[in-house]
Amino acid sequence: MTDAPDRRRAILEGAARVIARRGVRGLRVADLAAEAGVSTALVYYHFKDRRGILRHALAFIGDRADRYTAAAEEGPAVRPADPRELLERTFLLEFQDLPEVRENSTAWGELRAHTVFDPELREELAAAGAAWAAEVAELLGAVRPAAPAGAVAAAAERLTALLEGLSVRWLSGLLPLRHARELMREAVRVEVDRLGPDPDATRRDV
Amino acid sequence: MTDAPDRRRAILEGAARVIARRGVRGLRVADLAAEAGVSTALVYYHFKDRRGILRHALAFIGDRADRYTAAAEEGPAVRPADPRELLERTFLLEFQDLPEVRENSTAWGELRAHTVFDPELREELAAAGAAWAAEVAELLGAVRPAAPAGAVAAAAERLTALLEGLSVRWLSGLLPLRHARELMREAVRVEVDRLGPDPDATRRDV
Repeated sequence: MTDAPDRRRAILEGAARVIARRGVRGLRVADLAAEAGVSTALVYYHFKDRRGILRHALAFIGDRADRYTAAAEEGPAVRPADPRELLERTFLLEFQDLPEVRENSTAWGELRAHTVFDPELREELAAAGAAWAAEVAELLGAVRPAAPAGAVAAAAERLTALLEGLSVRWLSGLLPLRHARELMREAVRVEVDRLGPDPDATRRDV
Repeated sequence: MTDAPDRRRAILEGAARVIARRGVRGLRVADLAAEAGVSTALVYYHFKDRRGILRHALAFIGDRADRYTAAAEEGPAVRPADPRELLERTFLLEFQDLPEVRENSTAWGELRAHTVFDPELREELAAAGAAWAAEVAELLGAVRPAAPAGAVAAAAERLTALLEGLSVRWLSGLLPLRHARELMREAVRVEVDRLGPDPDATRRDV
């Protein structure tokens, strides 16, 4: 009925759901197959072993976050030419009370928390984290073109690490969503201001 | 041979070790008893049930972090009158390559990560988190006495959330210790500067 790419995708969607619901240690191949409505043989055919499932689930979750971030960036309310707004939005999109965002953030946080105990995904997480920090650094660089690259890179690392810290608090019910968004928005402001004055404001002053 | 407080403490030390090694879900009362060298009956006698163990382990881990923080604050290198130095130290003490600090941070992070999946410890974690943020806010307030209380409280929340985000990255081998310390130190600087000018510097200028 469904073709191979569809079933592959169904397995990855199932993996994200199971990880978000029961954690990495709760992911059993038989349960995942049942969740995705396929045979365990098909899961092994596509992903070889449990580590293969986890690695591809991590990439899938990362892509999905990119997709909902990009979709919102293309929304009518945003001027694509305003990097400052893009930057803020990139962070705030991770704090939305939508099932997809909650599930994605929960699974992502769990894959990170799992890596404290088991290094099996360390390389993939390091690459994904570096790519995400580089994207943020690019946006920060567009907002403050005169800022030194090292300061921009450090600000990007702090903002992404703060996002992770705030996400865990939000997802565990320790921090209300609205407050998490305020703290994140202000953090972006603080880090941007730290990188120097607004070049457009300076131009206006001249 | 040992008296009740010693055995109670041995159980809590064992719980912190087991949680740091295998996670909350890996904590079985029988294993904990073996780890602490006591009977399972004694574990139940002191802590009633698994939730009791977890709640007391959380408090124990929090107290232990306070203790190594306080010990260092009283060290000869620190002038107790310098709140700026105390503030920075409070954060940097969480990033030390010592077995006790690693174990404590790992167990603490795991208790937080667990709360995303299971709310059983939410209340205790919320109280511990609020107490920790209030301590940091007090130090920030001493460094910038003229800053509005709301801004000080928000800065304290961001710094403690950033510490949690950076800790997970450090403990999972994604961020070298030295770099984590640099990012944390600079974050303290950024947030303090945001709260207004140094009152002592102003006095010197006058």
